[in-house]
Amino acid sequence: MTDDVLKQVREFARDRLVGATGELDALGDMPLPLYQDFAKAGLANWWLSPELGGRGVPLEESVDIVSELSYGDAGVAFTLFISIMATNMVWLYGSEDLKRRYLVPMAERGGFGATLGSEEDAGSELGRTATTAVRDGAELVLDGEKWFSTNTDFADFLVVIAKSAENPSGHVAVVVDRDTPGIRVVRRWDVVGLRASGTYQVSFDNCRVPVANALNGPGLRVLEVGLNASRVLIASTAIGVARRIRDLAIDYAKTKPLRGSTLLNNAVFAAKMGQVEMSIGVMRNQCAASGRDFDSIALGASPGAEFLRQGTLKSALTAKMFTGQAGWQVASVGSEMFGALGYTGDSHIGKLVRDMRYVSIVEGGDDVLRDLMFNRHTLPEAKRH
Amino acid sequence: MTDDVLKQVREFARDRLVGATGELDALGDMPLPLYQDFAKAGLANWWLSPELGGRGVPLEESVDIVSELSYGDAGVAFTLFISIMATNMVWLYGSEDLKRRYLVPMAERGGFGATLGSEEDAGSELGRTATTAVRDGAELVLDGEKWFSTNTDFADFLVVIAKSAENPSGHVAVVVDRDTPGIRVVRRWDVVGLRASGTYQVSFDNCRVPVANALNGPGLRVLEVGLNASRVLIASTAIGVARRIRDLAIDYAKTKPLRGSTLLNNAVFAAKMGQVEMSIGVMRNQCAASGRDFDSIALGASPGAEFLRQGTLKSALTAKMFTGQAGWQVASVGSEMFGALGYTGDSHIGKLVRDMRYVSIVEGGDDVLRDLMFNRHTLPEAKRH
Amino acid sequence: MTDDVLKQVREFARDRLVGATGELDALGDMPLPLYQDFAKAGLANWWLSPELGGRGVPLEESVDIVSELSYGDAGVAFTLFISIMATNMVWLYGSEDLKRRYLVPMAERGGFGATLGSEEDAGSELGRTATTAVRDGAELVLDGEKWFSTNTDFADFLVVIAKSAENPSGHVAVVVDRDTPGIRVVRRWDVVGLRASGTYQVSFDNCRVPVANALNGPGLRVLEVGLNASRVLIASTAIGVARRIRDLAIDYAKTKPLRGSTLLNNAVFAAKMGQVEMSIGVMRNQCAASGRDFDSIALGASPGAEFLRQGTLKSALTAKMFTGQAGWQVASVGSEMFGALGYTGDSHIGKLVRDMRYVSIVEGGDDVLRDLMFNRHTLPEAKRH
Amino acid sequence: MTDDVLKQVREFARDRLVGATGELDALGDMPLPLYQDFAKAGLANWWLSPELGGRGVPLEESVDIVSELSYGDAGVAFTLFISIMATNMVWLYGSEDLKRRYLVPMAERGGFGATLGSEEDAGSELGRTATTAVRDGAELVLDGEKWFSTNTDFADFLVVIAKSAENPSGHVAVVVDRDTPGIRVVRRWDVVGLRASGTYQVSFDNCRVPVANALNGPGLRVLEVGLNASRVLIASTAIGVARRIRDLAIDYAKTKPLRGSTLLNNAVFAAKMGQVEMSIGVMRNQCAASGRDFDSIALGASPGAEFLRQGTLKSALTAKMFTGQAGWQVASVGSEMFGALGYTGDSHIGKLVRDMRYVSIVEGGDDVLRDLMFNRHTLPEAKRH
Repeated sequence: MTDDVLKQVREFARDRLVGATGELDALGDMPLPLYQDFAKAGLANWWLSPELGGRGVPLEESVDIVSELSYGDAGVAFTLFISIMATNMVWLYGSEDLKRRYLVPMAERGGFGATLGSEEDAGSELGRTATTAVRDGAELVLDGEKWFSTNTDFADFLVVIAKSAENPSGHVAVVVDRDTPGIRVVRRWDVVGLRASGTYQVSFDNCRVPVANALNGPGLRVLEVGLNASRVLIASTAIGVARRIRDLAIDYAKTKPLRGSTLLNNAVFAAKMGQVEMSIGVMRNQCAASGRDFDSIALGASPGAEFLRQGTLKSALTAKMFTGQAGWQVASVGSEMFGALGYTGDSHIGKLVRDMRYVSIVEGGDDVLRDLMFNRHTLPEAKRH
Repeated sequence: MTDDVLKQVREFARDRLVGATGELDALGDMPLPLYQDFAKAGLANWWLSPELGGRGVPLEESVDIVSELSYGDAGVAFTLFISIMATNMVWLYGSEDLKRRYLVPMAERGGFGATLGSEEDAGSELGRTATTAVRDGAELVLDGEKWFSTNTDFADFLVVIAKSAENPSGHVAVVVDRDTPGIRVVRRWDVVGLRASGTYQVSFDNCRVPVANALNGPGLRVLEVGLNASRVLIASTAIGVARRIRDLAIDYAKTKPLRGSTLLNNAVFAAKMGQVEMSIGVMRNQCAASGRDFDSIALGASPGAEFLRQGTLKSALTAKMFTGQAGWQVASVGSEMFGALGYTGDSHIGKLVRDMRYVSIVEGGDDVLRDLMFNRHTLPEAKRH
Repeated sequence: MTDDVLKQVREFARDRLVGATGELDALGDMPLPLYQDFAKAGLANWWLSPELGGRGVPLEESVDIVSELSYGDAGVAFTLFISIMATNMVWLYGSEDLKRRYLVPMAERGGFGATLGSEEDAGSELGRTATTAVRDGAELVLDGEKWFSTNTDFADFLVVIAKSAENPSGHVAVVVDRDTPGIRVVRRWDVVGLRASGTYQVSFDNCRVPVANALNGPGLRVLEVGLNASRVLIASTAIGVARRIRDLAIDYAKTKPLRGSTLLNNAVFAAKMGQVEMSIGVMRNQCAASGRDFDSIALGASPGAEFLRQGTLKSALTAKMFTGQAGWQVASVGSEMFGALGYTGDSHIGKLVRDMRYVSIVEGGDDVLRDLMFNRHTLPEAKRH
Repeated sequence: MTDDVLKQVREFARDRLVGATGELDALGDMPLPLYQDFAKAGLANWWLSPELGGRGVPLEESVDIVSELSYGDAGVAFTLFISIMATNMVWLYGSEDLKRRYLVPMAERGGFGATLGSEEDAGSELGRTATTAVRDGAELVLDGEKWFSTNTDFADFLVVIAKSAENPSGHVAVVVDRDTPGIRVVRRWDVVGLRASGTYQVSFDNCRVPVANALNGPGLRVLEVGLNASRVLIASTAIGVARRIRDLAIDYAKTKPLRGSTLLNNAVFAAKMGQVEMSIGVMRNQCAASGRDFDSIALGASPGAEFLRQGTLKSALTAKMFTGQAGWQVASVGSEMFGALGYTGDSHIGKLVRDMRYVSIVEGGDDVLRDLMFNRHTLPEAKRH
């Protein structure tokens, strides 16, 4: 089945995305019509498990799906996969009722979920979260403001991270219906790349949800778990963008005259592209390995408990850090490859460079991740390999 | 006098550029009003020699002027200094009459010169130039199309590189009044950065100029000479942009809370900034050294002949290559320093990254320059140091 | 069974290698006694297939075995795995008789095989091979000189690449008993690192072997196939050396006083180590993926034919190039981490840096591999991913 | 006069060093005979000022002298220039008597000075210095152990940094005659590179010197001042080693056959060498600029006071950090350029790589210098450029 999904996605990317760069790079009104078409084709939220009525594509194979989408447009890819963070949290730590109300319809008809973690003063340090979830009878009352959350405006439901006296850990992750009164989209961010996606600043003012909407687990740890799959898929974006840069460069080199031949026959060009090809291969193998690591827990006996125990997976950190760095090298090389033309809107390369940049920025910059890597996975000798 | 110019330029940058990023990053109608104000302040074309009525700032000191302008806006800097390529060619290889007609008014009232070298198939290989200058009685008739030329639309005069049977070298550099019939601006390029500057595609159709407008020397070699000063000043742009990135990062770090303190007190931040500071220092010393090298020839006995003999200066190649590379490292580090905010229009960093990129692209990419460096300055053992 | 082998190897490395750096870094008489002990423990040539009486450890799992050995000493690892190149060629393209005579005893009692490809003028260009194999009745007569071949002096058999009029491809790979008259070890190379291994310059003078000793296939292509597994294991060396550098740095940091604490609590140190940990993870996943790719062919229906069809595996090139580069970055960081002490013989780091360097050099430098990658795996559109 | 010195030094390097790599890379008995010959030629301690009877070569021009020596052998260069740290401290902060007793003979007959700063627990943090200088009547009594000090064993005098209750700053720099009882060379370090130099661990046991041997100034600040010139000259070593690598590569490329031509005509080789040439140029310009900066203070009205005021010069930090990094890139590229031969003792490249490494290690690693750069020269806004 996965091969089938992959094939459909590849065709979707070639037909709808590859030629539409200008339009996709435009911060168009969300959700773009093509997202509906993706859902109509039965492709939306391809990772949802069969028990929920989904197609059950494992994370390892989602890597290639995201690579194909990103080959077309990274912003489209991001919009289409980032719901995984919210759906995974609900799947692992939500009640059956929450799954039935939110995940089952998503598996059936498509739709989006959003995660609201970061705040103005709580970006790299989520412990600084100031949004509160206060119990009032059978309800939790949310108040505060979230900074960067993708898909929120048009999502069906949100998972909001908030301070909470109820939860022993001090924080809680709460499922919130998008239609709940008190939610206000303050603004849409004018993002540098991924301009086919929508990321929002959102405020909560006396926003009330049933107590049962709280996910079952310590809020920040639940969020950490949620970040595992999305980080691997963010990393996978880099593969697709790098492949696009490679193909763009080769197409250009075929027609660029150089010393009685074309750039394609130039040894320095070959050396650069050989290096790029290597990077693409390593990025893909790393993402696949990270996906496999995730899948082995997800398909295990008690995924929820095991993910809580492990928290941030080393393999997910590795994938995001590495592809962000290797992808940026590819983008940097690419940005010099098209001469002055590459510095104009006549070339796609500028857009691909902007898109690539997000891999190292969203869901934790490298400084934050290196610190996490060292303290969680290097310092404890038993964790080292 | 130079210190005085530098001080004025610094104030101009702080007053008119630093706060105007949005407006300067907008491909506004050229020339922007502020260019007139720069000329009114007597600052335009500061490098023109005193014999022409200019302020005679040497290239070594122009490095700091360009750094200050670029601290404000690299596109403004580029617009204001790039005429130096054309004026140097006229100064070194033009008749007294040409100097009187074009350079003296520029020294007096400001204005712009443009150089038209590159063509669609003659970017890195100028030997492929297809534009022709054919003698017809007392006139040279220009036909062809030039791709990337900055300032052309609003320049007073152009220096056009063309194939020519008259010139023993096969090419000629011709001074063309902007008002000459037959010149058509085909389009303005939608550039990725430097968006306060104007770069144009221009066609020549039976465009006639007096034979005496031809500069005295082999066309491609004259252009090589013209590129020396402009490459050093392109390199100098990187210094200003890097300084701006540094200061932007420090301002951000002062207010960004981190672990009970601010980012400013974080050791990893300090390490990154210490490295950036080092890079800025090296870039500046390199550009100053390259400027000094240029000045020593320009102030010598026969600058025209000596420049022709030397052609592309090693020091100019070194400056442009190095600052393009070091500047891009600074920009890459900078682009990760502002978290998700840095990926939005709320931060200037995205614009600075786009601006920085041009240093490695305009007037020869690194692949071209490395090849030139090796063949001209490494292979001949006598040239090695 | 593999886990068992891995466990034994790990113990061997800890017991015999980790503490013996000085002695192992000494170009000692080959083979060192410990190689015999490794064989006595039944560990030698662990990859040989069960049909030959071997332990049949797949390449994917050999990655970890080599990592463990290299953690102890990369030269020991190299000595112990490099026979795989020769045994694979014999396994895939040798007659049953050759396998019985050479591989079965190796599986039973240990021992070494060597491959002799490179010559003074045929390093990166094997087409320049000058050694000849000329048929004389029922014999092939070898004449020529080979430059860099590891293990040759103490190997049981050699696989020699030679020009041959018999083979339609122009070259042949011939199995030669080490005891054959006419073989002379000209010298042992004084290598910079891997000094527990022996690499030799070897001449052949009227060296006669039965015609049936020729392997069945085009000589250079057979060698290409032979290089696949060894390149993956060379790459795996980098993992072990990088892990050793990491652990050495952490041990040092624990005791190094810094600002009232130790280096271990320094944020810059943590950032460097987090990055190193990431690199180790990516290297390992890449090598494992390359091993898996190899195994899928090796365990397929017609491994010999399929390997010949594919020649140089993209995944093997990727592994060697990437780990060479990433490993060198780790080594470079490591080489600065121990202060002045790290610049003396009191620290192991100098030896680890020298050892790491070989990954990018042996069996094809990156310039050669990038070219191969581009021409074999990027230019043909069908091969791109 | 400087040109004359430079010419002599160049000849010395070509005649005595270039061909003697093996012998110089051998930790031979110090001082090697060639050091005496250098002194006999009147070249020793070329920087000593004319008032002391020296040749008075400014630091800017010493950059080229050190580059020439290092082209021959970096260890020889280091041995010959490192006395500058001690002589500068005595020149700036010593009494007339100390200058007469130690510097005047050095200017006349050659000889060496050594500086003893680092200790086992006081490498990057000199505030941890444990060696003591206690006043006892008219004497200062030194006790303690110094770790890394070059030239000490055969120097005429030492400058020792010690804790001191006498000095208001808590530390003092004391001139100590090498023959003073109580000094013991504990061992000579087995250094990885620079093996024509001698670096020692030295203990002081009740070592008594006249109180007047204390230099006039706060001990650690005096040492900081002393480090300025030596850091610039360490940086200059990188230039010479890089030039040697370049020339070695070109010589190799001339004879290395490649695809029907030689490596010299390969575009990838040209690109690498063009980049190396650029790096050499930038390193040299940076060192010269740093030298000029030093000279402008040294030749000013009150060099001692001004140096104390400025402490660690930004330009000296910049030179050492940058050349260490750029030099290591050159060395890394070089180490891959000679194929397998480059991994053996038949090639000089291994030695050049080991030599280059010291630039980033001796007199402060980059982590220490980046921190210093940031805190001294970036944080204070007035210091930024």
